[in-house]
Amino acid sequence: MTPTRDSSPAATLLVCVTCKSGEEQVGARLFAALERRLTGESGIALRPVECLSACKRPCTIALAAPGKWSYVVGDLTREAHVEDIVIAARRFAAAADGLVPWRDRPIAFRKGVVSRTPPLSPTNRLA
Amino acid sequence: MTPTRDSSPAATLLVCVTCKSGEEQVGARLFAALERRLTGESGIALRPVECLSACKRPCTIALAAPGKWSYVVGDLTREAHVEDIVIAARRFAAAADGLVPWRDRPIAFRKGVVSRTPPLSPTNRLA
Repeated sequence: MTPTRDSSPAATLLVCVTCKSGEEQVGARLFAALERRLTGESGIALRPVECLSACKRPCTIALAAPGKWSYVVGDLTREAHVEDIVIAARRFAAAADGLVPWRDRPIAFRKGVVSRTPPLSPTNRLA
Repeated sequence: MTPTRDSSPAATLLVCVTCKSGEEQVGARLFAALERRLTGESGIALRPVECLSACKRPCTIALAAPGKWSYVVGDLTREAHVEDIVIAARRFAAAADGLVPWRDRPIAFRKGVVSRTPPLSPTNRLA
């Protein structure tokens, strides 16, 4: 992935590390798995976050970048969705406005969207 | 409210204008009511948005600003919550990082949070 013009990564992948399933620290474990999986990957900045306030739908992640729509996605597991998360992050990184066509989203990213928010400036600030 | 240093508003209040309850255009009506209510209010930029992807919890709004946490909040109505939304937006505008203490949030903003996301830079970019 090519970094955006102001050197911001094309995608920041935020992973809630406080997500729990029962007593299990599923969020922290998903973060660790993604950290291993994304070693050497450029254009995607992985970042832990304490609570995305969607605690009923662990694990939760968010995709964000300057000038793009942001997405919060839930119902993800380390066992089933690491590759889907990487694919979704790459496609988000490649999308100038962050809007990935429905057909190009992994199934988990069609079903799991918790919310989305537009970029703060009406036009892409990097354009 | 004092505008932030880079002239961005201290809060952008995004209102989903595609939110429906049955056939009723509840989102567009909430937006219209807020437009009237916020006339002359500085520091809060009101902006319509097409779908915050939290369609099961109309009406939905978001609060955002550069360098602050963003919040998506649902289960709001024009009939009950216009004043709560204005109060929440003012307190968000006044909070340097967007984090409003629990006790200072209107009840609807304690119960209705759909998600939150951190500012992209680890530190407040306006500081």
